Amino acid sequence: MNGYVDGRKLRFEHRRGEVLRAATEHALDHGLAGLSLRKVAQTVGVSHATLVHHFSTKDQLVAEIVDLVLTQSLALPDLADDDPEPLGTIWRRATSDQGRRYIRLFTAITGHAMHDNPMLRDAVARSMQQRTALLAAGLVRHGCPEPEAVALATSLLSTLRGLLVDLLVTDDEKRVRAAFDDLATELDRRSSAWPTPGAGPTPAGS
Amino acid sequence: MNGYVDGRKLRFEHRRGEVLRAATEHALDHGLAGLSLRKVAQTVGVSHATLVHHFSTKDQLVAEIVDLVLTQSLALPDLADDDPEPLGTIWRRATSDQGRRYIRLFTAITGHAMHDNPMLRDAVARSMQQRTALLAAGLVRHGCPEPEAVALATSLLSTLRGLLVDLLVTDDEKRVRAAFDDLATELDRRSSAWPTPGAGPTPAGS
Repeated sequence: MNGYVDGRKLRFEHRRGEVLRAATEHALDHGLAGLSLRKVAQTVGVSHATLVHHFSTKDQLVAEIVDLVLTQSLALPDLADDDPEPLGTIWRRATSDQGRRYIRLFTAITGHAMHDNPMLRDAVARSMQQRTALLAAGLVRHGCPEPEAVALATSLLSTLRGLLVDLLVTDDEKRVRAAFDDLATELDRRSSAWPTPGAGPTPAGS
Repeated sequence: MNGYVDGRKLRFEHRRGEVLRAATEHALDHGLAGLSLRKVAQTVGVSHATLVHHFSTKDQLVAEIVDLVLTQSLALPDLADDDPEPLGTIWRRATSDQGRRYIRLFTAITGHAMHDNPMLRDAVARSMQQRTALLAAGLVRHGCPEPEAVALATSLLSTLRGLLVDLLVTDDEKRVRAAFDDLATELDRRSSAWPTPGAGPTPAGS
């Protein structure tokens, strides 16, 4: 624990995470467009040299901010399987003040990924594919027939992202909320035709 | 027609539109992030002074490019009322090579609108509100009950935008196409319950 090398390494690694979180907060407030190592150093309160020591280049820092933000936007890691309204829970989280900051930066990152930025594009693609797979698995656990789960998950996530962008851009809470309620009603109607998970006939051999 | 002042004005205005179209092509290929009057002047083949004469500032040029692009992305101006598959037509247009260029730049613009850019934000908001109103009116013409038309239009446009971004980012044509087909099937099912326009009881007094 008190070995020089390990202690120094631990201190550096601790500081690195701290610097990354502070830089991410900066990006959540101001986007990535004007981000520079010098500006982040100033905001975070570390020297430019320290930042270069930790992240080498602005691109590396941006990549790590992007990973952090993509992991946390529309994430469903701790959604309880017995949540009676999982879609409502996702929506409530995403439209909270903190949720909106993440969706805002996620949308900005997606915009940056559109032209000549394969690194960002790959990161956003991975994030979308992971969320789609997670949601499709969740839908299957709720009784959705497997053949339609990926298409439905893709469509649901697209609608949620689209509604959130509409909300962030137009600030029209009432219209977007009504559209979300319409989506939830339609999903309820659709899922009411699914077999109750675990209530079906016992598979042969089990 | 040959008056000096009018002739000169016409020539300038003609040239202005030409320059704007060429600058928009540049943005469709490369986005707005690296756009500068100097770069556009170079690409379009006019002098920097001419560009300043026409558009004064980069912001003014960007504003006009944005207006052009927002008018043409997911636009439904000439969609025939008797189109048997209006959603399919919108999708086919949006996913054509030219359609994708516009959606790509629209997505980049929306990303830029996320932080500290009220001018872009207002432009994107206006575009979204206009499209929502247009689509809601179209849905009503197809028999959708008025009270649910705006919510459904908001949700449909969000899904379309979300699916197109997924497609542009992941390139996963098969999965996104399946999600679009799922959306179209659900809309068909839903609209089959709507009264056929014109087939209802004649309103009293008409």
